[in-house]
Amino acid sequence: MPSSLSLAAEPDRLLPAEPGVRAIARDLLSLVDSLPIISPHGHVDAAVLAQDTPFPDPATLLVTPDHYVVRLIHASGVPLDRLNQGPIANADPRSVWREFCKAWPLFEGTASGYWIRSEFEHVFKLDQEISEATADSTFDALQSRLSEPAFRPRQLFSDFNIEVLATTDDPLDDLQHHAAIAADSTFRGRVVPTFRPDAYINIAHPSWVENVDRLIGTAGDGAAGYAGYIRAMENRRRYFVEHGAVSADHGVRTPLTLKLDRSDAEKLFTRARCGEWTPEDRDVFEAHMMYEMARMSVQDGLVMTIHPGSYRNHHLPSFEKFGGDTGHDIPFPVSYTEAIRPLLQDFGTAQDFHLVLFTLDETVFSRELAPLAGFYPSVYIGAPWWFLDAPDAMLRFRSAITETAGFSRSSGFIDDTRAFCSIPARHDASRRIEASFLARLVAEHRISPARAEELIVDVVDRAPRRVFKL
Amino acid sequence: MPSSLSLAAEPDRLLPAEPGVRAIARDLLSLVDSLPIISPHGHVDAAVLAQDTPFPDPATLLVTPDHYVVRLIHASGVPLDRLNQGPIANADPRSVWREFCKAWPLFEGTASGYWIRSEFEHVFKLDQEISEATADSTFDALQSRLSEPAFRPRQLFSDFNIEVLATTDDPLDDLQHHAAIAADSTFRGRVVPTFRPDAYINIAHPSWVENVDRLIGTAGDGAAGYAGYIRAMENRRRYFVEHGAVSADHGVRTPLTLKLDRSDAEKLFTRARCGEWTPEDRDVFEAHMMYEMARMSVQDGLVMTIHPGSYRNHHLPSFEKFGGDTGHDIPFPVSYTEAIRPLLQDFGTAQDFHLVLFTLDETVFSRELAPLAGFYPSVYIGAPWWFLDAPDAMLRFRSAITETAGFSRSSGFIDDTRAFCSIPARHDASRRIEASFLARLVAEHRISPARAEELIVDVVDRAPRRVFKL
Amino acid sequence: MPSSLSLAAEPDRLLPAEPGVRAIARDLLSLVDSLPIISPHGHVDAAVLAQDTPFPDPATLLVTPDHYVVRLIHASGVPLDRLNQGPIANADPRSVWREFCKAWPLFEGTASGYWIRSEFEHVFKLDQEISEATADSTFDALQSRLSEPAFRPRQLFSDFNIEVLATTDDPLDDLQHHAAIAADSTFRGRVVPTFRPDAYINIAHPSWVENVDRLIGTAGDGAAGYAGYIRAMENRRRYFVEHGAVSADHGVRTPLTLKLDRSDAEKLFTRARCGEWTPEDRDVFEAHMMYEMARMSVQDGLVMTIHPGSYRNHHLPSFEKFGGDTGHDIPFPVSYTEAIRPLLQDFGTAQDFHLVLFTLDETVFSRELAPLAGFYPSVYIGAPWWFLDAPDAMLRFRSAITETAGFSRSSGFIDDTRAFCSIPARHDASRRIEASFLARLVAEHRISPARAEELIVDVVDRAPRRVFKL
Repeated sequence: MPSSLSLAAEPDRLLPAEPGVRAIARDLLSLVDSLPIISPHGHVDAAVLAQDTPFPDPATLLVTPDHYVVRLIHASGVPLDRLNQGPIANADPRSVWREFCKAWPLFEGTASGYWIRSEFEHVFKLDQEISEATADSTFDALQSRLSEPAFRPRQLFSDFNIEVLATTDDPLDDLQHHAAIAADSTFRGRVVPTFRPDAYINIAHPSWVENVDRLIGTAGDGAAGYAGYIRAMENRRRYFVEHGAVSADHGVRTPLTLKLDRSDAEKLFTRARCGEWTPEDRDVFEAHMMYEMARMSVQDGLVMTIHPGSYRNHHLPSFEKFGGDTGHDIPFPVSYTEAIRPLLQDFGTAQDFHLVLFTLDETVFSRELAPLAGFYPSVYIGAPWWFLDAPDAMLRFRSAITETAGFSRSSGFIDDTRAFCSIPARHDASRRIEASFLARLVAEHRISPARAEELIVDVVDRAPRRVFKL
Repeated sequence: MPSSLSLAAEPDRLLPAEPGVRAIARDLLSLVDSLPIISPHGHVDAAVLAQDTPFPDPATLLVTPDHYVVRLIHASGVPLDRLNQGPIANADPRSVWREFCKAWPLFEGTASGYWIRSEFEHVFKLDQEISEATADSTFDALQSRLSEPAFRPRQLFSDFNIEVLATTDDPLDDLQHHAAIAADSTFRGRVVPTFRPDAYINIAHPSWVENVDRLIGTAGDGAAGYAGYIRAMENRRRYFVEHGAVSADHGVRTPLTLKLDRSDAEKLFTRARCGEWTPEDRDVFEAHMMYEMARMSVQDGLVMTIHPGSYRNHHLPSFEKFGGDTGHDIPFPVSYTEAIRPLLQDFGTAQDFHLVLFTLDETVFSRELAPLAGFYPSVYIGAPWWFLDAPDAMLRFRSAITETAGFSRSSGFIDDTRAFCSIPARHDASRRIEASFLARLVAEHRISPARAEELIVDVVDRAPRRVFKL
Repeated sequence: MPSSLSLAAEPDRLLPAEPGVRAIARDLLSLVDSLPIISPHGHVDAAVLAQDTPFPDPATLLVTPDHYVVRLIHASGVPLDRLNQGPIANADPRSVWREFCKAWPLFEGTASGYWIRSEFEHVFKLDQEISEATADSTFDALQSRLSEPAFRPRQLFSDFNIEVLATTDDPLDDLQHHAAIAADSTFRGRVVPTFRPDAYINIAHPSWVENVDRLIGTAGDGAAGYAGYIRAMENRRRYFVEHGAVSADHGVRTPLTLKLDRSDAEKLFTRARCGEWTPEDRDVFEAHMMYEMARMSVQDGLVMTIHPGSYRNHHLPSFEKFGGDTGHDIPFPVSYTEAIRPLLQDFGTAQDFHLVLFTLDETVFSRELAPLAGFYPSVYIGAPWWFLDAPDAMLRFRSAITETAGFSRSSGFIDDTRAFCSIPARHDASRRIEASFLARLVAEHRISPARAEELIVDVVDRAPRRVFKL
């Protein structure tokens, strides 16, 4: 049996067990483990960095905002209110932390468990095991750390060696925090906004009509109706570009795309504003707007990222009580092949258009994404994320796509996280897995050691810069 | 090359080849290889244990009732009647055995081959190789064993170290054999019935009307129609609970669930009893009854297990001649996410409700089951079974679910077998694979050795007790 | 790090990294690496062998006709006309070669990269690395080789140790080249045609009406309409059988099969000839004709191979400019279970009927193909091909099917290639992977060394002969 050294401190963690392959992986990893972090998509709040607000407490930092963590504690029988979810959250953070500590053994083998353990070891240098018995003492230890200057967001940003961090933002956000960060010469990181117009495109969104009214009123250049809507989208995208945005992100229900006639689109838009629409209208309008968003991306250069296939807020009673993003978005089957075709007919070979396709349905990797990205210059294969940004899943991803599409057609790692302190652990895990995959190919004489050394740098560092135009 | 030692006697069989990982796996296996067998779902006939009837002959014990074995011999060109399938089975068991021996090389690499080889080695201590040439002598050797007292069902039950064995039973079964076993102080095993109402729920079942008439007449408390039907279901479930049942099992066509209005359900039920129904009615009624079954499970505590997605009796000519369960149930694609939602809205967080979701479509593991069980306290991930209860498939299963749902959300091994003598081999294989999977995580520093030692006991022993309330 | 020996010359290339497993794999490989090549399905032009025409130049031989290669270069941003695709191809082959050399690094980790590297090493003994810098010198070196007698098609055929090579042919092809080859006693290879009637069955094919007119006129025995059509199909199949064909191949849109009434089929056929058909008619007629083709196969003995599930010519602008087979056929989800049932009801157990089912959707392997082939004597599991004939994908295939269906129910390797010089590399890779998979099972004590030695010969050599009646 291996020693009981802290797992997160193990230099060979996540690397393949076979000693020969592990040695190769270790060498490859050494080429990238100190490279800066490029995070082209995530959910950290720019205000946190602009204002450099200290993090309040361990539970509010590490548990409450992290769906991955909340959901598994909930599955063990803890109601969401005891995890401070939703608008009426008023539990004592210490009691939330106790729930987490009690549930900690459930995280063995999970990606979240790996990240959190890494944070304790590498960020917080916590010297106690997490357990029900140590709930209070670990809370206190972490709370004490968080009050130190070294644990302020900007210092962590710097210590984490983050070069670029993209946030995710409402189209009408004034991006003041991004502007403040950019204007602040004492802060060297690059924090860029991302245009995320879902709530203005999904006509089933509870406040869609209100959102659209505000959008047209704010940025429609005086035009009304559909014309004003499209104009406003273009204007706000330009505003985002001017504030450093490199991509527009789309969380859609299905991968469908459609090119409606202008007049059909107008009619549908008008009907929807009156609240007269069917579920099919919903999908059709979203599909049409994906076509429009692609058209705008071809013009303004924003990289387009799409991630369909999640049934949002699956448990209605929880949604009604606690709101969205509380751990019950559940994937369903997806197929891009026919659905994305209308968009690709017109933009699949468009100059400098980058379209990154994500999936939560692994079957799509070998069947569709590798073949699509292996032909269309515009298409890039989105890295495995959400439930799939875990060691085994990332290895399955590389195995599924590489033999068809090679290494040049994938997006590079996407951390997609709200959990700021988990960013280094996530990128570290990804780099270890890339090294592991390449090491196997080297050991099987499928790639030369010299090329593997180039490729590890390419997939970790150059791919996200290239794909996201950074 | 390794030696030609009998494979089934190899202490390291099924363990990973890499010596370091194998050593860890061996240590983990040693913690569970002598634990009792918990079998919460299977198809052994309780009468066999109640009456302790000697097994008739090797073919009737090992070949005829085992679809896994029959189907592959059939695929090699042997008609089903030569394998004693169906009501008119009248082939000489010895000739069936010859067909099996001739086909034996086809089983290399299959799960069935592994189990049977284990039975020969560990149960029957057979000292000859199976081959066309040894068909008669192996038949005689096994026949001779089966006449010994040591090979009577109860003695084997005890030698197999089975603690709990669940059978699968018709709702109107009087469970006399279970009662007899429970009343017999000379027999220490626990043999519990399972409520399996498919033939009373699937309105396309050839004898559904007759079944329902009998059900209402027997247990409807005098109520007629749908009210009597529901009442009778509740009553028979209670009868099963009183006889030790812990679960109700549902082999449904699709994973659909629906909550019909009482009056709609009544109308549909009434129409179906008159034989006036469409294929859609069939699915809708089954979906509604799954909702009702969940409601009853919340009340009476029976664990609910669902296994959709098999096209039953795929080859109609074979079905017409030989009946069901003759090897041609073929899986098709399944998605739980939207289908199971109506049930989960109302019962997904119900106190002490346990819902075990099985699948024959592996894509569901990472895409749906791990996310569902990682949020809903009621949902457990059914172990891979049927075509998937094999070493590689079980490893794919653990890899697919663990990073999202950890180890606490799966059901524990399910042998689901009619082949009584294969039970030890099946559980042994499962334990070896659990040890193999955990050993890899230990070797990759993803789980500590100490936690792996706890987890192997948990997944082998505690999980089935916890999930099936044993 | 391993040495920088040329990868393609590494004796252990593709074999597993773990030394013990590798040693077993090496021993198994030694039993098959000099066996002759059996290629029961591919796209080499018989004229090339009949006329023994020298290959014109490296680009026209290795790049232009190979979709795998063209598509990935296109994805990197090179327009198809610069790769000499389509009717107006008029780029200088040397400039095509330069594009290839520039794009060569993109092929790292791909199956195509592996094959091409093998060709350079083993066929052309090229002693320079491919790179932008060596584009001209490698072009010249290869061009010089191609002018030598040793690089004429027949000599290569012999040097490649090909025993049987099947081509893919139009039903109205006169098969003169096959006849010439068969009549030529100086050539010892067996080159057999394959009946491929897609363009006569798919009513959406641009020249379907014209094709059908020619078919009926040529081979309808004077009968008109549907009767003449069916008669002509039967006659042309017989003609193919007489010229050595062993199989009929069907590239269909979906796996659907249907048995239409004769009169319904006639009506549909007649409507389609008048151009009056819907997309549904298209699928229905194709489904019906698959039933008819199976019926004919039962009569004339041609092995039936089906490969559905590819969206052909996905990028319409590229298709309109460059024609079909230019790298943008994209797979979509497929399910055989219900779709193939009508055909299997009537022919699933027919004497000597062989039906090989291929898929580009990997989910079908464990869910459907292994269960189907594990029951129906007529069904064989098609080897992974197209995007899936690569090392990792082939290992996933074996892992997915073997535990249910063993080794006897799969087709043996299919190279399916237009790239004549890649044939040895493709079969070599397949043999290495078969050895790797079996070696793991031996190392895990799941198969004995002695049986593995038999199985490697069976899957490499006997399976294709058995399944394709060679």
